[in-house]
Amino acid sequence: MSSTFGTLFRVTTFGESHCKAVGAVVDGCPPGMELSAEDIQPQLDRRRPGQSHLTTPRNEADQVQILSGTEGGLTLGTPIGLTVANKDQRPRDYGSMSQVPRPSHADYTYRAKYGIHAASGGGRSSARETIGRVAAGAIAEKYLRQVFDIEVVAYVSSVGTVDAPQIDLATLDRPAVDASMVRCPDAEAAAEMEAAIVAAKEDQDSLGGVITCVCRNVPVGLGEPVFDKLEATLAQAMLSLPATKGFEIGSGFAGTRLRGSEHNDRFVMKGERLGTATNNSGGIQGGISNGEPIVFRVAFKPTATIGIAQTTVDLDGNEVSLSAEGRHDPCVLPRAVPIVESMAALVLADMALVQKMRV
Amino acid sequence: MSSTFGTLFRVTTFGESHCKAVGAVVDGCPPGMELSAEDIQPQLDRRRPGQSHLTTPRNEADQVQILSGTEGGLTLGTPIGLTVANKDQRPRDYGSMSQVPRPSHADYTYRAKYGIHAASGGGRSSARETIGRVAAGAIAEKYLRQVFDIEVVAYVSSVGTVDAPQIDLATLDRPAVDASMVRCPDAEAAAEMEAAIVAAKEDQDSLGGVITCVCRNVPVGLGEPVFDKLEATLAQAMLSLPATKGFEIGSGFAGTRLRGSEHNDRFVMKGERLGTATNNSGGIQGGISNGEPIVFRVAFKPTATIGIAQTTVDLDGNEVSLSAEGRHDPCVLPRAVPIVESMAALVLADMALVQKMRV
Amino acid sequence: MSSTFGTLFRVTTFGESHCKAVGAVVDGCPPGMELSAEDIQPQLDRRRPGQSHLTTPRNEADQVQILSGTEGGLTLGTPIGLTVANKDQRPRDYGSMSQVPRPSHADYTYRAKYGIHAASGGGRSSARETIGRVAAGAIAEKYLRQVFDIEVVAYVSSVGTVDAPQIDLATLDRPAVDASMVRCPDAEAAAEMEAAIVAAKEDQDSLGGVITCVCRNVPVGLGEPVFDKLEATLAQAMLSLPATKGFEIGSGFAGTRLRGSEHNDRFVMKGERLGTATNNSGGIQGGISNGEPIVFRVAFKPTATIGIAQTTVDLDGNEVSLSAEGRHDPCVLPRAVPIVESMAALVLADMALVQKMRV
Amino acid sequence: MSSTFGTLFRVTTFGESHCKAVGAVVDGCPPGMELSAEDIQPQLDRRRPGQSHLTTPRNEADQVQILSGTEGGLTLGTPIGLTVANKDQRPRDYGSMSQVPRPSHADYTYRAKYGIHAASGGGRSSARETIGRVAAGAIAEKYLRQVFDIEVVAYVSSVGTVDAPQIDLATLDRPAVDASMVRCPDAEAAAEMEAAIVAAKEDQDSLGGVITCVCRNVPVGLGEPVFDKLEATLAQAMLSLPATKGFEIGSGFAGTRLRGSEHNDRFVMKGERLGTATNNSGGIQGGISNGEPIVFRVAFKPTATIGIAQTTVDLDGNEVSLSAEGRHDPCVLPRAVPIVESMAALVLADMALVQKMRV
Repeated sequence: MSSTFGTLFRVTTFGESHCKAVGAVVDGCPPGMELSAEDIQPQLDRRRPGQSHLTTPRNEADQVQILSGTEGGLTLGTPIGLTVANKDQRPRDYGSMSQVPRPSHADYTYRAKYGIHAASGGGRSSARETIGRVAAGAIAEKYLRQVFDIEVVAYVSSVGTVDAPQIDLATLDRPAVDASMVRCPDAEAAAEMEAAIVAAKEDQDSLGGVITCVCRNVPVGLGEPVFDKLEATLAQAMLSLPATKGFEIGSGFAGTRLRGSEHNDRFVMKGERLGTATNNSGGIQGGISNGEPIVFRVAFKPTATIGIAQTTVDLDGNEVSLSAEGRHDPCVLPRAVPIVESMAALVLADMALVQKMRV
Repeated sequence: MSSTFGTLFRVTTFGESHCKAVGAVVDGCPPGMELSAEDIQPQLDRRRPGQSHLTTPRNEADQVQILSGTEGGLTLGTPIGLTVANKDQRPRDYGSMSQVPRPSHADYTYRAKYGIHAASGGGRSSARETIGRVAAGAIAEKYLRQVFDIEVVAYVSSVGTVDAPQIDLATLDRPAVDASMVRCPDAEAAAEMEAAIVAAKEDQDSLGGVITCVCRNVPVGLGEPVFDKLEATLAQAMLSLPATKGFEIGSGFAGTRLRGSEHNDRFVMKGERLGTATNNSGGIQGGISNGEPIVFRVAFKPTATIGIAQTTVDLDGNEVSLSAEGRHDPCVLPRAVPIVESMAALVLADMALVQKMRV
Repeated sequence: MSSTFGTLFRVTTFGESHCKAVGAVVDGCPPGMELSAEDIQPQLDRRRPGQSHLTTPRNEADQVQILSGTEGGLTLGTPIGLTVANKDQRPRDYGSMSQVPRPSHADYTYRAKYGIHAASGGGRSSARETIGRVAAGAIAEKYLRQVFDIEVVAYVSSVGTVDAPQIDLATLDRPAVDASMVRCPDAEAAAEMEAAIVAAKEDQDSLGGVITCVCRNVPVGLGEPVFDKLEATLAQAMLSLPATKGFEIGSGFAGTRLRGSEHNDRFVMKGERLGTATNNSGGIQGGISNGEPIVFRVAFKPTATIGIAQTTVDLDGNEVSLSAEGRHDPCVLPRAVPIVESMAALVLADMALVQKMRV
Repeated sequence: MSSTFGTLFRVTTFGESHCKAVGAVVDGCPPGMELSAEDIQPQLDRRRPGQSHLTTPRNEADQVQILSGTEGGLTLGTPIGLTVANKDQRPRDYGSMSQVPRPSHADYTYRAKYGIHAASGGGRSSARETIGRVAAGAIAEKYLRQVFDIEVVAYVSSVGTVDAPQIDLATLDRPAVDASMVRCPDAEAAAEMEAAIVAAKEDQDSLGGVITCVCRNVPVGLGEPVFDKLEATLAQAMLSLPATKGFEIGSGFAGTRLRGSEHNDRFVMKGERLGTATNNSGGIQGGISNGEPIVFRVAFKPTATIGIAQTTVDLDGNEVSLSAEGRHDPCVLPRAVPIVESMAALVLADMALVQKMRV
């Protein structure tokens, strides 16, 4: 009941780790837009496992198939059905752990909620669920680029205790992000982050981090006051991603330590339009985009599934030592970059369509 | 189109700063529950302006009226109409500023979005919009308390650069929070915060801060996987509040700096139930409550409207100096405490009703 | 949870028969539109009781008050709060019947569903609930008229076994409808209908009937394929009205008896645009308006509450004789005319805003 | 944006006539229910073309595939992805007609709305769209049967001018319905209907008709007052089906001609429960089920696509003669029976889950 997101540009996802296929239905994509699998595949490739030694060795092609909603290479305005086959269906992998809920994972809560639990893998809490989001997000992005020239770029701004320096968000692009395996555009920080991940991996441990995302060329006026403020919807979108623990727009938590006179974004003329001298607002005021770049940060916890032995209890309350044996990313951040971009695109596409309603 | 929140326990708010009344319609409140204005008024009183020298002197009684949905003191299961009259209707107050959009306020974006703007006050971006939320939240809270014994308590954990020390969230209650005007339960920190606010006020400046909220006795199983994860819905709820810039659940951004082996919440037996030794998860795993206290933090920026002169530009691009003259809180945090609690209660009440559907 | 209708032009209603006030919140009305109580009152006046000897003598002024959403006589784009006071609050009126559920009324099902029931009157099943709809519908109508020149006109096409002859739907207007108390534009049929109602009233009995509605100047393209087809949404809107038993679009049930070659609406040129030679489609093809007048019919059952003694059983299963003593319309049709128009306007306004999204 | 239906038991459909696959995502199906393709296939088989000489010769296997949401034959509570391949992909079939919108079909309105149109077949207005509904409906039905013992049975009650006699709705079952190709349980009427369809087919013409549906063992209390009344939601569901023109609940339009004293359903004891002596209410009072069988009727127009030459105009306004050459049912009624049942099941399953929320 919660697998649908959006009001007019609407995505519904489906699929677990080890079922036949995962996918999405995108309803409300405007008609007459050129669309083929080639528009979608690149972001899926950035998301898929096995891209480098930093990520899980599950080597899945993750080829998207468009089932419906286009004809002759153009969108029809009808729902776009998208599937990606699950090539790697090994439901027995985690069998031994079925009586031991993994710490900080969804095993226990799913079981409590549903009275049943996908025997293997993370079910809907698996990162694999995000494939449908990324496929849908790629369509949203294409719409945003074509109609508004909107650019959405995310990067890894910290891994564990390694922080990237300030990045120029006005010019950042995906090639710069993808220059390092860890998807941090600062080469030096990237190298440190990579080393940290390798070290954690060797320790059978894991790391978290932060992704920063910028959305440029967003027109003024997107976002709905009150409950669907643009930042509120972005926050929902980001906290709906597995392993996320926090969201900041603009100055975020750091901004709470400034005085109003320091924090306020004074208006200035930027060519023909009103802009702001600073961007503590992160491109949003009163829930509505103001024409400045939208900038937000998303916190990801360290991967919960780790090889190190953990003392915990099984469902009967017996103390046990648990060492995960599955294939898991020691750090999800690099692969989460396109996922964050996709959710941002879904939010903006929906808000753009809703805003069109204004007389 | 965005003034409605929730799936089964659903609130729709209305009202601007200076119209006849603000209010809400609560649809989906279970029938047969005792309810009167006395259940709602206390939280409105904690929210209302003029409580102390720390808040705006707008002295409005903010008495709630229940228009419908109850009979003989019991809820009927039908929509509960709630209004609070706007006693202080001074639409001319900000007239002189109508051509000068206030920095970091919603004036500019509302005008751009709607082509019209409430001439005075913040329109729907005004803190006054939150009255409907608080009234509705008080009803949600009563339901949660009666059925699940859920307790929701928020407090001010920082103001500007003044941080409260660690507070015992297992025992914190509202009297302890309300012991200081600033709503920080640590007396020493409260005194420092108050001094900081007074200083900012004297400087015609403003301060931001952080509110921490704990929800105790939340049953296991609330929250819907994927887009309506419990933390995602809380994040949306909190970022939909005016002046918010960030949201953290459990370990939040700080948790991203830990390794998985440090961050994971090992399971332990707590009496008859499975609990966790630590609570970095903030009471939620895989989007679903796990029975531990739900703990989150919300960042509020410093109040945008300040008396200090700011150099900015008017709508025609002319540079002007702007000094706000209206009545404004130098720091919204103390009054935001019941608002944060109310939004948390609305989220939990809705999730509780949705979860009842499980066979 | 069901008191909200619409996606972008959205109405939420509240209020029972005998609470303080009934009303509505209209969210999503475009900004900058002139709006005052005078735009809303006429339809409320057509709906209110006590207009003639044909209707219930409850003489309530039903004056609407706009609480929010406008300033200086213009809509702000923010939610419009609307209330109408319940002047006649007599919760004891039906007290004696509280153990005897009225046949074909909602007493029994409300009690079964909610375990509680407004002691008096019909609660949310009361015709009084429709006040919020009519107030909201009047706003929708004004928007439709201003932007598209859409005209919505309904009339009583049958009362009991008295049928109006064919009416010219191209020219029908509200003055013609209101020329008779019974709201049938054919004087002869109107007289017969009135006589039938008077006779039923004298017998302490009641009559049903059919309302026909035409919507002219609806632009091509409104309505969403699949579940939100224009006729599907109209059907929901109409069957959501108290006492309705059926809905027909265009040729309706009679059309099922024709062959395709007789029923198909051949295209012809109408000035510059494609039109159809006949209108069995009722202005909608594939769920989308085609530019021809939208024509539909709504069946209303005879009023359930009657003075004639009925043998029935009370909640304990004891056989009893029940004679209603409250004040009730012997026939709801005349007052239902503006209600049907209002729901049609709400549907069209919402569809118009949604359709604006198309690129 | 309109391809999703339901609040808690929610279906999203996708697919056109000639794309790779049609299907649905069912979100909110309770966990732990046995489910395999065998539960779904029978209703798809009843829906599929080529069952008899009465239906279109498109011979498509229409085998459903469950992509997700089950494991070990049990539902997980997660979205159930369903696809049916389009074996017969002939997008050129209607090419010659692309400049000539078919009378009473969706060609013209889709083109007007979207500015693009699936070159072949009916796009989303095609009967093929209903495959997703039937697959989803079969799942809803299984849930309803298991938990409430609800039985949903529809049959063809008229074809053109041939009416079935009164059928005993207390005992009607699907074998009785399927005893005739035309799906009318009265053998004599079925033979007449079949003859009428054959005659229309020979004339290259088409017929409409009426389907009657009964839902037995529906518990008291389903349906939400006001906009989501049970009959309103059923009306939306039915009018959302292609080719439908009308909906009646209980006594329907005929009931409008009775007096209240004749029409009212007096309460009587039926064993332990309150029942009604008659069922003019069709099992619903005040929008809420009352425990009696829910009975409704749906009008289907004669198939719009016919072989007989029709004089019409093309998109440029030129008069042309159009004779459809595709493969079309001369009468959709027999195949529409499982579709009506499916939509009824989707409505009831959703309402049942929503009602569970009551404390």
